[in-house]
Amino acid sequence: MVIAVDAMGGDNAPSEVVKGAVKAVNETPNLEVILVGNQAVIEKELAACSKQEQSKIQIEHTNEFITMDDHPSEIVRGKRKSSMHIGLKLVKGGKAAGFFTAGNSGAAMAVSMVELGLLEGVARPAIGTILPCSNERGFFFMLDVGANVDCRPEHLVTFAIMGSAYAKKVLHIDNPTVGLLSNGEEEGKGDMLTKAVYPILKKTDVIKFTGNVEGKALFKGEADVVVCDGFAGNIALKVSQSVAKYITSMLKQELLSSTVSKIGALLSKKAYNNLKKKTDSAQYGGAPLLGVNGICVIGHGSSNDTAVANGIRVAMNAAESRMNEAIVGDVKDSLASILNY
Amino acid sequence: MVIAVDAMGGDNAPSEVVKGAVKAVNETPNLEVILVGNQAVIEKELAACSKQEQSKIQIEHTNEFITMDDHPSEIVRGKRKSSMHIGLKLVKGGKAAGFFTAGNSGAAMAVSMVELGLLEGVARPAIGTILPCSNERGFFFMLDVGANVDCRPEHLVTFAIMGSAYAKKVLHIDNPTVGLLSNGEEEGKGDMLTKAVYPILKKTDVIKFTGNVEGKALFKGEADVVVCDGFAGNIALKVSQSVAKYITSMLKQELLSSTVSKIGALLSKKAYNNLKKKTDSAQYGGAPLLGVNGICVIGHGSSNDTAVANGIRVAMNAAESRMNEAIVGDVKDSLASILNY
Repeated sequence: MVIAVDAMGGDNAPSEVVKGAVKAVNETPNLEVILVGNQAVIEKELAACSKQEQSKIQIEHTNEFITMDDHPSEIVRGKRKSSMHIGLKLVKGGKAAGFFTAGNSGAAMAVSMVELGLLEGVARPAIGTILPCSNERGFFFMLDVGANVDCRPEHLVTFAIMGSAYAKKVLHIDNPTVGLLSNGEEEGKGDMLTKAVYPILKKTDVIKFTGNVEGKALFKGEADVVVCDGFAGNIALKVSQSVAKYITSMLKQELLSSTVSKIGALLSKKAYNNLKKKTDSAQYGGAPLLGVNGICVIGHGSSNDTAVANGIRVAMNAAESRMNEAIVGDVKDSLASILNY
Repeated sequence: MVIAVDAMGGDNAPSEVVKGAVKAVNETPNLEVILVGNQAVIEKELAACSKQEQSKIQIEHTNEFITMDDHPSEIVRGKRKSSMHIGLKLVKGGKAAGFFTAGNSGAAMAVSMVELGLLEGVARPAIGTILPCSNERGFFFMLDVGANVDCRPEHLVTFAIMGSAYAKKVLHIDNPTVGLLSNGEEEGKGDMLTKAVYPILKKTDVIKFTGNVEGKALFKGEADVVVCDGFAGNIALKVSQSVAKYITSMLKQELLSSTVSKIGALLSKKAYNNLKKKTDSAQYGGAPLLGVNGICVIGHGSSNDTAVANGIRVAMNAAESRMNEAIVGDVKDSLASILNY
């Protein structure tokens, strides 16, 4: 299986991206990577690799690339030979099974929509992400976390179906529960949007809707899939990262404030490292863009080699799982179930 | 100064509420409390108090009270003699300078609107809350955190003005900065609501608007006051509590997983306690309901005696500061500044 990788995307590109690609082909059987970007630059990064490694990595040259400051709408038409455009064209043309980028996520979405198009029955794509939590499995899946800020009810219904299909096919969760992010548990709680979405999700046979999920219950992992619009989802995701950073920095400050505490912290170092590992987003690699006719996985801008390698594997798993066929089928069936209710 | 207190509101009422009231009058000069609720029950709780303490506490008897399950709209007309109604009537009638309750917050808002009415120029009240963060001051103020889920732009503009007035008058922050919670920093980022609000806030002379605040920057405390609708605010607030709980419980689990870590944790105990103290919401006592014509402070349902005592002091400070006069003046001036821009 071949995955195309945006060698020029992300804060640590191309060095960490190339390292991540090498890591991925070394650790993953049957994986080959096409690195898309400036050939000379990539070749320099690959110089130290073994013949064996190099045999699994091709380069697709382009001199254009998208920066974090580029505006998505200008990119789509203005930088048609960017590494994102070329990578997604490889997917469209069947030369790659999926695409991974750690670059500008708004651009990745916009270019994906143009190059891959949308799946049948899907009006808006959504970005999903895995988050750690305290349920038995240790994680849940949330979408949309930023692709669409203003949504209509039917968009959220599609997000629910796509999220459920992803949970089944790629995350291997049987009969995943789906919750709706809201400001209260009861059916009557929510804003206009979620109050309109709730009764439709209740009627949607193809998913196991379990009602509203409050912010305070989010990290308990009560639902396997949590659905929201991209504004609320972005805030929930970013606030959670902000709090985690705040608490760990405050704790560090307190631990360093006395010698006794410092010694204690040294003795507990393994515990801190385990916690860090469990909550490290690099292990999840990347967020799938759901709803486009092809596989595109978006990594964090600050992705290191581990995150890139994991993100490439997310794209590989998504492609192998044939999740897009499942999404198209579920969207069709759900429409029937809502209409026939 | 006299503060009326809902003796029957909250998970730990009446015991912790009465204890909190006693604590407050003992620790705060010039403070008297009227406990509103069942006289016999309250008297029993007060039995162990000294004459001195009892001289500062009156009881206003009523047999009706609101539970957490009561629906706000039914309460307003259905339980006219509830401890909330009576307490807020004491404020309206001038017998108390403010009211504190740890009961049903939706009910507290609904009853406040009926009993106190709204301030001139205010169409919707908002619930504000103090949150700890890593700026120099160590906290910021966010509103609305749940009173209004569907807002129009003018509502958020009023929230900004009210939040700024509260920060100046009650939190004693000179020239407080005001930020708008959004999914990106730039002016063009946001949903339809925040994109409509941004240019109006920019024109509002009476506040120091500093632009959008992203979720990821929230706990850095970049803005003294953060404005949002009650849906996004509720999610941001509750998600932050959920993450904090998740991280601390995971850390505890890791610390207890080996003997060495356990010893380390014991040595670092003071650091953990300091962190807990700094992030404990009980120290902030309660969330002011802004926009009503009187002082109403809403405590967390699980308030202990410390939280109740602090909540009573929040009501006292708000009353002393004459913040409502400032709000009315600022709302009037802002309208002029927006129109004359």
